[in-house]
Amino acid sequence: MQDTILDKIMKPKSIAVIGASTKEHTIGSDIMKRLQEYKFNGKIYPVNPKGGIIEGLQAYTSVLEIPETIDLAIVVVNAKFVLSTIDQCHEKGIKGVCIITAGFKETGKEGAELEKQLVEKLKEYGMRCVGPNCLGVVNTHPDIRMDGCFAESLPERGNIGFVSQSGALGGGILNILKDLNLGFAQFISIGNQADVNAETALEYWENEPDVEQILLYMESIQNPSNFRKLASRITKKKPILALKAGRSAAGASAASSHTGSLAGADKAAAALLQQSGVIREFSLKNLFATAKVFANCPIPKGDRVAIITNSGGPGIMATDAVCEYGMQMAKITDETKEKLRSFLPSAASVKNPIDMIASAPIEHYKQTLETVIADENVDMIIVIYLPFLGLKDIDVAEALMEIKAKNPQKPIIGVFMTKNEFFTKLSDKNVNMPFFMYAEEAADGLNRLNQQRLWMERPEGKVPCFDVDRQKVKEIIAKSVKEGRDQLTTLESIDVLQAYGIRACKYGLATNIDEVVTLGNSIGYPVVMKMTSKTTSHKTDVGGVVVNIRSEEQLRKEYEALLGRLEEKGLLEGLEGVIIQEMVKGNREMVCGIATDPQYGPMMMFGLGGVFVETLKDVTFRIAPLTDIDAKEMVQSVKAYKLLQGARGTTPAQINQIEETLLRLSQLVNDFKFIDELDINPLLISEKTGEGIAVDGRIKVRMNEAKEFLGCEVGCCSQMA
Amino acid sequence: MQDTILDKIMKPKSIAVIGASTKEHTIGSDIMKRLQEYKFNGKIYPVNPKGGIIEGLQAYTSVLEIPETIDLAIVVVNAKFVLSTIDQCHEKGIKGVCIITAGFKETGKEGAELEKQLVEKLKEYGMRCVGPNCLGVVNTHPDIRMDGCFAESLPERGNIGFVSQSGALGGGILNILKDLNLGFAQFISIGNQADVNAETALEYWENEPDVEQILLYMESIQNPSNFRKLASRITKKKPILALKAGRSAAGASAASSHTGSLAGADKAAAALLQQSGVIREFSLKNLFATAKVFANCPIPKGDRVAIITNSGGPGIMATDAVCEYGMQMAKITDETKEKLRSFLPSAASVKNPIDMIASAPIEHYKQTLETVIADENVDMIIVIYLPFLGLKDIDVAEALMEIKAKNPQKPIIGVFMTKNEFFTKLSDKNVNMPFFMYAEEAADGLNRLNQQRLWMERPEGKVPCFDVDRQKVKEIIAKSVKEGRDQLTTLESIDVLQAYGIRACKYGLATNIDEVVTLGNSIGYPVVMKMTSKTTSHKTDVGGVVVNIRSEEQLRKEYEALLGRLEEKGLLEGLEGVIIQEMVKGNREMVCGIATDPQYGPMMMFGLGGVFVETLKDVTFRIAPLTDIDAKEMVQSVKAYKLLQGARGTTPAQINQIEETLLRLSQLVNDFKFIDELDINPLLISEKTGEGIAVDGRIKVRMNEAKEFLGCEVGCCSQMA
Repeated sequence: MQDTILDKIMKPKSIAVIGASTKEHTIGSDIMKRLQEYKFNGKIYPVNPKGGIIEGLQAYTSVLEIPETIDLAIVVVNAKFVLSTIDQCHEKGIKGVCIITAGFKETGKEGAELEKQLVEKLKEYGMRCVGPNCLGVVNTHPDIRMDGCFAESLPERGNIGFVSQSGALGGGILNILKDLNLGFAQFISIGNQADVNAETALEYWENEPDVEQILLYMESIQNPSNFRKLASRITKKKPILALKAGRSAAGASAASSHTGSLAGADKAAAALLQQSGVIREFSLKNLFATAKVFANCPIPKGDRVAIITNSGGPGIMATDAVCEYGMQMAKITDETKEKLRSFLPSAASVKNPIDMIASAPIEHYKQTLETVIADENVDMIIVIYLPFLGLKDIDVAEALMEIKAKNPQKPIIGVFMTKNEFFTKLSDKNVNMPFFMYAEEAADGLNRLNQQRLWMERPEGKVPCFDVDRQKVKEIIAKSVKEGRDQLTTLESIDVLQAYGIRACKYGLATNIDEVVTLGNSIGYPVVMKMTSKTTSHKTDVGGVVVNIRSEEQLRKEYEALLGRLEEKGLLEGLEGVIIQEMVKGNREMVCGIATDPQYGPMMMFGLGGVFVETLKDVTFRIAPLTDIDAKEMVQSVKAYKLLQGARGTTPAQINQIEETLLRLSQLVNDFKFIDELDINPLLISEKTGEGIAVDGRIKVRMNEAKEFLGCEVGCCSQMA
Repeated sequence: MQDTILDKIMKPKSIAVIGASTKEHTIGSDIMKRLQEYKFNGKIYPVNPKGGIIEGLQAYTSVLEIPETIDLAIVVVNAKFVLSTIDQCHEKGIKGVCIITAGFKETGKEGAELEKQLVEKLKEYGMRCVGPNCLGVVNTHPDIRMDGCFAESLPERGNIGFVSQSGALGGGILNILKDLNLGFAQFISIGNQADVNAETALEYWENEPDVEQILLYMESIQNPSNFRKLASRITKKKPILALKAGRSAAGASAASSHTGSLAGADKAAAALLQQSGVIREFSLKNLFATAKVFANCPIPKGDRVAIITNSGGPGIMATDAVCEYGMQMAKITDETKEKLRSFLPSAASVKNPIDMIASAPIEHYKQTLETVIADENVDMIIVIYLPFLGLKDIDVAEALMEIKAKNPQKPIIGVFMTKNEFFTKLSDKNVNMPFFMYAEEAADGLNRLNQQRLWMERPEGKVPCFDVDRQKVKEIIAKSVKEGRDQLTTLESIDVLQAYGIRACKYGLATNIDEVVTLGNSIGYPVVMKMTSKTTSHKTDVGGVVVNIRSEEQLRKEYEALLGRLEEKGLLEGLEGVIIQEMVKGNREMVCGIATDPQYGPMMMFGLGGVFVETLKDVTFRIAPLTDIDAKEMVQSVKAYKLLQGARGTTPAQINQIEETLLRLSQLVNDFKFIDELDINPLLISEKTGEGIAVDGRIKVRMNEAKEFLGCEVGCCSQMA
């Protein structure tokens, strides 16, 4: 075996249990028992200051006394002794520890301080550590056989790598693995994640052949960008399923922009998981059901499903579920139909779903399944069984598994609507295909297989780099920052967009009637007039936008009227002037923007704009930076995509140019990481050219970060200003 | 017991099994065995032409030979003998039959003919009949004890009335009832529904105290309006849960209207079930899970949920699920907190979710549950258990059930993430609360209880009757029909709407430039000009609508340009003229309309209109006729409702007036049932008054029905024309 980052912990040749105990029902006793019961394939050294015999082994009073090399120390001593224990481990030359002991940052300030000291020691000593405050570690490989956990049950052997952020949950799951017909290759209870976290495990398992799929239970993601990098690479080789809890805990967002108010931590987590190719489940039940499917099915070649049944009703229900997931009911070939007709009774239906009717004996199940597997129009198969006329469930299941063993190339899922004892019996068998009670569960499973297929076929995508005027943006922002404004004016915002090559409409700023008229005449009518103010951000709410001004005369009138309205509302003070803008004709308003999640960083939004943004919420999110494929998927994933394609006589939008707009925005926020919020609303689709044109823009920065980043440039700009 | 429609079948005192057999593994033998094994509380008479002893009873060679009165005949003879058997049953004075025999309309033309003759005989004889082609009937009441089915297992006793349209599925379910911890009061396998169908069962069970909840498995609804009448009444007293299969089987709709193309059979079924207060489930798994909850929980007084747990992770997952259903996490009172603190360890959390931590003994479970039940801020409770430190699952469950027995007033659901054997043990016990493996299942269940509560609290609503000009509509449609047009012109459509008191904008028809100008001047500018044609239905697609015409001069120009465009496209032929219309200012476009489902009849639609109708599909459906409550819920249930309320500085819409528009449309289609499709798109929300104003209308009728309905009026109108 290759020596990688975690081998000392996950594949140790020798383990010291520091804090081993003879006292029943203590962790120090249970860990010793489990290691021995599960027949650890290496040496176990109990350590206890009192010495004595523990679980039949001579205990050492200190780890330093052990005469041989130790790969892994499992630490269960009281929290106050943990630091000195780590010192001793270092002295002994131990490179891997698993600290089960609780009493660290989960308990408050004092514990957090202790954990901080622990982390420092680990770094200093170059030691890898699982925990503290965790359930332990498991490796079921026959060469290792390590059960370093204090769960109720011994682990079941399987192909899953499981990471749990909740120790209790991990224990609960180990306890029911057998009933679920699932097994672990490795299990890591990461606890407080002082060192090893989900990302460490992902990296470790990437090339571990014994781990064929990875399951994650997470309440938080420690380093989202690193997670994305790792997961998006690994999911191309093996599936990662994640249950991310704490969705409703997301605090209320205080954001003032559209993008900000629609975003939120769970949107960010959802986007991150999606961009990483991680299959997200929303319940433990579904997490395990999907794991059972991946444990026993190859990735299909396509999405065409055949259903074989001995009862009509469940066949219809399976068809409903398959179609609702957008998969296809396979078109059975004539050859297959003919073959099926040769042995099935006349009352049987040889169209998909294939109804062999209630009288079907085992022989029909076998022949039908073999025939359907051979059909080139079929990618995946559901086989349904209801008990009739003395046909035994377990016999049918065994017949199916026999066929499956000979034909491993296509996913086959059994739906056996029968008694619990069938599933209990199965849990004692070496199954090679998943069985469920209900048709919908099988369709769920096939849908997940298909999702993994689509992800694996999806091109990786690139983050493009456009030629942009970075210096100009620096200057604009520096000016705003210098003036103490975290919110750029509309004018500044549009200038920033244009500096990054984003198509915005022609405009100019005017501060008096003469400038207004000159601008209007030079741009050409019709024009739009918009107030720009340092104090008012939602301009439409105060009547600050006038559209379709068709002549100089009208422009003069509207300008005066605007000043009147603002004076009346006491808003003249902050007015910088008005923007006179090219009027872009089109009735399709999109929105795009940037929001910042405190944990996940900048996030891109795209969707239907105008007054509908917050009402209809037809928007989608991705974490920046975007790849070209991300941008393409964003545009295609909103319902309004049909509008862009040119519904009912409108000009088809320039989809590529809209994608590029998103990519340029992504580059902008990547270059200026302190941009907190950015809205382009609307991004109007020109009826003439189909371009998406930024008609309005709002940018907000985080002042302190901006100041730090701009550093001397603020100085430079201030000289220029 | 009261003698109602189905008592002879469901509560018989004597049963004749016609076609009883001594041959093993035949239905004629199995039925006899099940009746006896389940200890039918009445007399059983086997009938077989060969006589002899069947299952220990003397067989009669004919039903006529039986010396006593027979309530129910269970018929299992070959299909070709069924009609003569029914004759004999009639002669014997039998009023209830259950025909298990297959070979009727499910087999094709000949079988359908046989079934037709059967139906005629049943009517003639005044006989009630379950089947043919069914699994049989069950009543588990101790006074009856009838298992008249040939399923594998004997039925479990419970409070559910179950109707299955699939016999095989019904049998499959009977087989797993015990594992599901569920029991039936009565079960009817309706088979081909020659007589008894789901509606008969609903009516029968409405006042049957032994049936406390009703479960339906349906592939079709025979008489939707009768179903709605019955179900909406019964659901006020007891829950009805339905699984409606065959959703994807809906054929492609050939409708030309917006409303029509968005509708479809499953939308209709969904609307019908919703308006009837039926809880719709989409999988058998969920159907049974919900049934288990209703079987053991009272309807809560509110939606405030408390969660009690011994492990953090599952507590978070339960919280997520509760919040995602829109239920509330209960605010535990200070008094409760104080009490909890008095016995829980300091590391425990007494905020909701209440985390008693892993060390919680049974005593803490008991005390905590009792304390939380007593909290007036709590309506429903989830109790989570993970196995720790030797605490036995079944002991905890029994302790909870003991408390529950003393405190039956609030729903309590147990989440026991433990081994299957726990659930197997439970299935042998008399449970008084539901237990699930996962937290999300418990949240699902509470959500269903809450849904039932909201339905029971919902006012019944009334179908109002407005004073309308019915005669005028008759005349308009008669004219169109007489001219062979199933599609009314825009003008006619708007006239129809106005005759029913629906606010449409001022307009007039003009056929030449002089009329155009006169109309424009009399309505006052700005106006809209719209072509009206007998051949072109989507006017905007051909440039047939011009808005914001501000002067006579502009009107003249635009009229000429329109004629030019139509000539170019060869569309001048069908042109009736142009409508000059008051221009209503507003940028909120809604849509409402009528579509007709071949099975469910007229269906109302409401939602976001304009170009967004088919892209965003922010629309909702209800079956006509609408009650005032239906109309209110329709308007509130679309996302665009927020726009109507007046988002971002717009005038709040007159919600009542929009509701009334829907109710008037409902009355229109109720009065003229042959209206096939109707669109008001847009129903523009006036920025000035907030009214919803019909700016465009399209009506299509079913010619043959219209002709039949209008009868002499067509003649009358033709004289008027």
